[in-house]
Amino acid sequence: MKQSKLFTKTRREVPADEVAKNAQLLIRAGYIHKEMAGVYSYLPFGLRVIENIKQIVREEMQFIGAEEILMSSMQRKELWEQTNRWNDKIVDVWFKSKLHAGGEVGFGWSHEEPIGEMMKNYISSYRDLPVFVYQFQNKLRNELRAKSGIMRGREFLMKDMYSFALGEEDHEKFYQSSIEAYHRVYNRLGIGNDTFVTFASGGAFTKFSHEFQTITEAGEDFIYINREKNIAINEEVLNDDTLKELDITHDDLEKVKTAEVGNIFNFGTQKAEDLGLFYTNSEEKKIPVWMGSYGIGISRVMGVLVEKFSDEKGIVWPESVAPFQVHLVALDLDNEEVRKQAEQVYQVLEQKGIEVLYDDREGVRAGEKFADSDLLGMPWRFVVSKRTAGNIEVKKRTESASQVVSLEKAIEIIN
Amino acid sequence: MKQSKLFTKTRREVPADEVAKNAQLLIRAGYIHKEMAGVYSYLPFGLRVIENIKQIVREEMQFIGAEEILMSSMQRKELWEQTNRWNDKIVDVWFKSKLHAGGEVGFGWSHEEPIGEMMKNYISSYRDLPVFVYQFQNKLRNELRAKSGIMRGREFLMKDMYSFALGEEDHEKFYQSSIEAYHRVYNRLGIGNDTFVTFASGGAFTKFSHEFQTITEAGEDFIYINREKNIAINEEVLNDDTLKELDITHDDLEKVKTAEVGNIFNFGTQKAEDLGLFYTNSEEKKIPVWMGSYGIGISRVMGVLVEKFSDEKGIVWPESVAPFQVHLVALDLDNEEVRKQAEQVYQVLEQKGIEVLYDDREGVRAGEKFADSDLLGMPWRFVVSKRTAGNIEVKKRTESASQVVSLEKAIEIIN
Repeated sequence: MKQSKLFTKTRREVPADEVAKNAQLLIRAGYIHKEMAGVYSYLPFGLRVIENIKQIVREEMQFIGAEEILMSSMQRKELWEQTNRWNDKIVDVWFKSKLHAGGEVGFGWSHEEPIGEMMKNYISSYRDLPVFVYQFQNKLRNELRAKSGIMRGREFLMKDMYSFALGEEDHEKFYQSSIEAYHRVYNRLGIGNDTFVTFASGGAFTKFSHEFQTITEAGEDFIYINREKNIAINEEVLNDDTLKELDITHDDLEKVKTAEVGNIFNFGTQKAEDLGLFYTNSEEKKIPVWMGSYGIGISRVMGVLVEKFSDEKGIVWPESVAPFQVHLVALDLDNEEVRKQAEQVYQVLEQKGIEVLYDDREGVRAGEKFADSDLLGMPWRFVVSKRTAGNIEVKKRTESASQVVSLEKAIEIIN
Repeated sequence: MKQSKLFTKTRREVPADEVAKNAQLLIRAGYIHKEMAGVYSYLPFGLRVIENIKQIVREEMQFIGAEEILMSSMQRKELWEQTNRWNDKIVDVWFKSKLHAGGEVGFGWSHEEPIGEMMKNYISSYRDLPVFVYQFQNKLRNELRAKSGIMRGREFLMKDMYSFALGEEDHEKFYQSSIEAYHRVYNRLGIGNDTFVTFASGGAFTKFSHEFQTITEAGEDFIYINREKNIAINEEVLNDDTLKELDITHDDLEKVKTAEVGNIFNFGTQKAEDLGLFYTNSEEKKIPVWMGSYGIGISRVMGVLVEKFSDEKGIVWPESVAPFQVHLVALDLDNEEVRKQAEQVYQVLEQKGIEVLYDDREGVRAGEKFADSDLLGMPWRFVVSKRTAGNIEVKKRTESASQVVSLEKAIEIIN
């Protein structure tokens, strides 16, 4: 895409009302717009990153056999009353509103109840199980505080997946395959090495749930890790019992600050019993369905990536999610030859299916273009100018050294 | 995809609480699930149709130079007060809620105000114009009645586009190109011939707005059309003045029932003046931006397609939006040769990039499989059975005749 066509602009000044680095950089780079505290709109480049993250997650969820659906935001009061979670004292993040037609509705902060309820239409026999579904849905949560940019929003995009299984054994199988799928997601996002499957507090059915925690100073959690043994324990469950169970001592653990980028949870049969979701087994007996839920905060992950991959100059996107692979920066555009070359490079890259942002803006100084390029954070910068004399100066966003090479060679380098 | 893996099921009985044909069929076929009146969730096949419609719209909006963004659902009260549209007496479809942090928020039933407000960050000079942006966003509207299935929801997916221009001339240029883009969209959706650009009531700045109205008995509007002259007039503006202006008489018009599938609207400079969205022209003078808005109800269009393209047996999807092009129905699966052939046909179609739903269910009678296939409505049905003896019985959903041909020939037929 040509940058001259882009309506967003970069800014030098840090937004006064943002303390979180992710929001500061994303707003300065024109990726997001703040509607109010904890509520952001996604501008063209921001939406591209979101879609790239979604696609990675989608591929991995499909790989383990889950089907994509999309639930509504609006929710029935009666449904949530079955599990006593309409009550504001039990769930304190509801946004509720009155229907003109009478009655109250809530806006989805989670979808466990509505998905469980819906499945009553489709699950009646053991032959109908297992079922795995996921969605990318816009959650609304009435959070009291919202100071972490897109890492904790009042409105945010989440991948939530739900599993419905015959019993514990089948549940465990999917639960384990989801852990592996999550690992692949975080690896592909470039945070695999810093993301730990962490023992956290469970529920009625299990001692532990599992969180995926990524080391970052911007996090809100503390976990205790042992890198060698690949063990991580959330502060909330760090006690003698847990240490004993995991066969580790406190001294072997390192305390790190982390952000939760995913969580998986075993409901056992409790949720299904509350909702009345049963199946008939081969002996005609009614059995409650074994449920699990599996979340990844898509917009939150985008925030974590910015927190982890940025420097004093701006964002440094991992190649897997960058809005464009290459930022083609053309200088000296008043020179006919340079202009022609830049245009040609742009076209060749596009033809080769390489996503390229072309800074074709006239009357913008070289220093400004470079500053914008660093702020925007594409993985590769291609400079074309009088000085490059028909070649291309190729630089990686993460490195300071550059080299001047032919277009052919430049394409080879980035592949 | 293999139908045995699908969690949804078809039903024979019509849902008792649905009067709209679109909802009846879509629920029976397992495309959607009703959460409450006017609120539906999209199951795997329903979501595929939605995504196919979105992709057609996306391509045509990009073609006329619009950039995709995604605004938030949550909206600030103060923003809408500027145009006096927070007032429930003026806008009667708001869902509003209280923030725990204090104050009130609304949930987006439209985005003219927030997008206009946001543009203050990006539009200051004539050099910044024009700007065209669009989004696919989940609108929430507190409708008193909701009986039309997904054709008029309390929650629904909309493509809304907004234009920001220097003045009337530039505005008109984009307005016209959007009319052409809309025509292309409806043509690709298969409803081009029955969709009319219709004069409807305008606003402060223009006598008329333009609606895109599609002839269907399920519609809520009446328009008057002249097919030869390609003129259409909404009942609401049908008067002597309008007839004179369009140089047509009442007798030349035919009254038809229609559903609105799109609308485009010229705000002139009124909206920008209310919001304070000005640019500086080359003489350093402050000028209000000329704005337009352009909507297509994505889920509504899906409903209209079902209303128009269905018969007593079920849905008849246009090829452009069908969840799968081919429904491969395998009978006699207890026969090893048939099973092998079906599996092979499935793999070949997938390898060729043809989207195929494979009814691999065992223990389901032929009649039931055919009934399901008709209800689901894929454009082509491929039957493999003992009777087809290594060949394929190919049938178009819209036709009753079938032919038994080789796989090679079958692929030729559908292309």
